[in-house]
Amino acid sequence: MAYYPEPVARLIEALQKLPGIGPKTAQRLTFFLLKRPPEEVTALGEAIVRVKAQIVNCSVCFNVTEEDPCRICTDPARDGKSLCVVEEPNDLLALERTGLHRGRYHVLLGALSPLDGIGPEDLRVRELLARVETQPVDEVILATNPNVEGEATAIYLAKLLRPLVGRVTRIARGLPVGGDLEYADEVTLGKSLEGRKEMG
Amino acid sequence: MAYYPEPVARLIEALQKLPGIGPKTAQRLTFFLLKRPPEEVTALGEAIVRVKAQIVNCSVCFNVTEEDPCRICTDPARDGKSLCVVEEPNDLLALERTGLHRGRYHVLLGALSPLDGIGPEDLRVRELLARVETQPVDEVILATNPNVEGEATAIYLAKLLRPLVGRVTRIARGLPVGGDLEYADEVTLGKSLEGRKEMG
Repeated sequence: MAYYPEPVARLIEALQKLPGIGPKTAQRLTFFLLKRPPEEVTALGEAIVRVKAQIVNCSVCFNVTEEDPCRICTDPARDGKSLCVVEEPNDLLALERTGLHRGRYHVLLGALSPLDGIGPEDLRVRELLARVETQPVDEVILATNPNVEGEATAIYLAKLLRPLVGRVTRIARGLPVGGDLEYADEVTLGKSLEGRKEMG
Repeated sequence: MAYYPEPVARLIEALQKLPGIGPKTAQRLTFFLLKRPPEEVTALGEAIVRVKAQIVNCSVCFNVTEEDPCRICTDPARDGKSLCVVEEPNDLLALERTGLHRGRYHVLLGALSPLDGIGPEDLRVRELLARVETQPVDEVILATNPNVEGEATAIYLAKLLRPLVGRVTRIARGLPVGGDLEYADEVTLGKSLEGRKEMG
């Protein structure tokens, strides 16, 4: 005899497709929404519908954007000869927050992961090669994640890019600022030794 | 220079109003949605808008329902003389799954919590009293949660209901089935001793 009204059941089901949300959390969120003011709930629902309707991937760099090409690709103040390659739009935003990269970006929309069946053709690799072939690029900075997939992607791209671009660089791996040497894992500590620099 | 396109920023903000979802998770969910097929994302957004538009609280028992009064309140096979009082609609559903309560329900839509400023006037207490005054009720089962707020609510309601109803009962507290005596907390173990029954 236990049943959910159909709209409740449908929402619980839809929420379960989100990462990290199981049946219990989906149920909790649904009953939470049922208790909230209608305008707040409608705002959330419409924000979800709109984000998909209004946001596209930039046809040049594949960052998320409302206008195509995106604001970074069309900004004349950004240096088109320096391309920073990242896996996802949030990586781009994290780098933008540092304010240190004055060039443009290329978002792969993923990383190589043979175990998940993700190969180069699933990423924006062809488009990256086309970019460096059709416009002058002095440096490609490979800023994929410092994990297995990100490293594999960087190594793969470096091989393809070296014949086409003057400098192909990889962001530094090492001890995080404010971190503690004692608690660093061996791989990070090893990378930080390898990457050591003369003191100025 | 770091910015989110406006629809992205708006969704991240809206998601943060959900319980247990902070800025990082909201960002992760938003970028997850941007990578999903449009029909899946639209289905989620519309499910949220619809749940609020199509679901109301039953005007008799305050359970969530598409039709008012709800299916349990209008089901002639359910015993209107036995009322089970719960805090939230999910509690009702949990009880329905046991299949053991053949009466009807009353959903308080909360529990007394002076620290959060939730008093009897914020719950459906007045409506509960009106129900037992205007229709014959033999038993009210207080099935609020076995925590501080639920106990306080049960004690408060019992006091109000005793002059009006033949039997006012409280669901049993004791060791969970499949549990281990050694690991039970003292309060639960105490309750399970107090509530002991003659073996049949």
